[in-house]
Amino acid sequence: MFITLEGPEGSGKTSQIPALAEFIKDAGYEIVVTREPGGTPVGDQIREVLMNLKNVSIVPRTEILLFLAARAQHVESVIRPALELGKVVLCDRFGDSTLAYQGYGHNTDLTTLRSLLDFSTGGLKPDLTLLLDIPVSKGIERKQDNCSEWNRLDAYAVAFHERVRQGYLKLANEEPDRWVIINAAHDKEKVQESMRQAVMQRLSP
Amino acid sequence: MFITLEGPEGSGKTSQIPALAEFIKDAGYEIVVTREPGGTPVGDQIREVLMNLKNVSIVPRTEILLFLAARAQHVESVIRPALELGKVVLCDRFGDSTLAYQGYGHNTDLTTLRSLLDFSTGGLKPDLTLLLDIPVSKGIERKQDNCSEWNRLDAYAVAFHERVRQGYLKLANEEPDRWVIINAAHDKEKVQESMRQAVMQRLSP
Repeated sequence: MFITLEGPEGSGKTSQIPALAEFIKDAGYEIVVTREPGGTPVGDQIREVLMNLKNVSIVPRTEILLFLAARAQHVESVIRPALELGKVVLCDRFGDSTLAYQGYGHNTDLTTLRSLLDFSTGGLKPDLTLLLDIPVSKGIERKQDNCSEWNRLDAYAVAFHERVRQGYLKLANEEPDRWVIINAAHDKEKVQESMRQAVMQRLSP
Repeated sequence: MFITLEGPEGSGKTSQIPALAEFIKDAGYEIVVTREPGGTPVGDQIREVLMNLKNVSIVPRTEILLFLAARAQHVESVIRPALELGKVVLCDRFGDSTLAYQGYGHNTDLTTLRSLLDFSTGGLKPDLTLLLDIPVSKGIERKQDNCSEWNRLDAYAVAFHERVRQGYLKLANEEPDRWVIINAAHDKEKVQESMRQAVMQRLSP
């Protein structure tokens, strides 16, 4: 069972993960929690290049290829081995982030992106994707309250984040069996509860 | 005029560049000398990840995507701007290294690779490619004499290097107008002379 979490900046995705992981573990499953674009020693080094404020000159195609490089490593050395052992894998961002940010956000051709994605993942797709959806203004507000997480990727304009949000919603509507949309504007406990419900419906058929 | 240098490990490619660049400059051309996978601050950081001996666990798809990420940055921020100003660009390795090493060497599908390459370069191709060809055993011997250049990429087996060499020769035979094959087993001065001849034939039509 491969579960991914997606959502725009400030959706609270990352802060929800520990409690969700604990819940899945308590339900009797072995769980591996990981994140994109890191998740491996090689991936963490790539993440550093991506997040480094000095690298403001990075061009969109480079950014895409770096995310995909980290993902290829992540799939082969972390995700696939865990899935093969029957574990639940809970991953903070995956391929849909590339489609939402680089595709819808930066207007990169989606067909090209999907074929690059397919190369990097070797065709692996999540079984369940939770989309933590939040209006852009509210997401940015939350993010700015938490300065330690401020990095190069937050410097883009609001219009970009709006395209990302709408992109996520389109992706979710195209594959309703895989995606569950969660209203992340609700309070933290209610969001956690919705996430748990979505996961449990899949884990206990 | 975009000139690339290609060749297997130990072909002496890199050590020939300063003299060749000087020669082109003396002939009255403005020249930019650069190299793959570095050539930009972002690219140099990617190069570090690739060359780091600690990263022995790097998987082939990750390696490919990292080279392509560095290349995308290199093309947009160094090569294209220089060519647009009418300069000669002399580049130590470019797209053909990906085809030779990852394609022929690691048996990655060449059609997939070419489409990934096309994405990373935005379709840019060299006007002239000098292949410094040398028998594998002789190349490895030379490389081992120069321990400071020993890195992770040299740890592959001789069979791999043989596939790379044969791959280069196939690529050169497929596009004889672009490639000039130079016998790098000759002494250094003779190799330099052959390189200069090939370059001058293109620079002065």
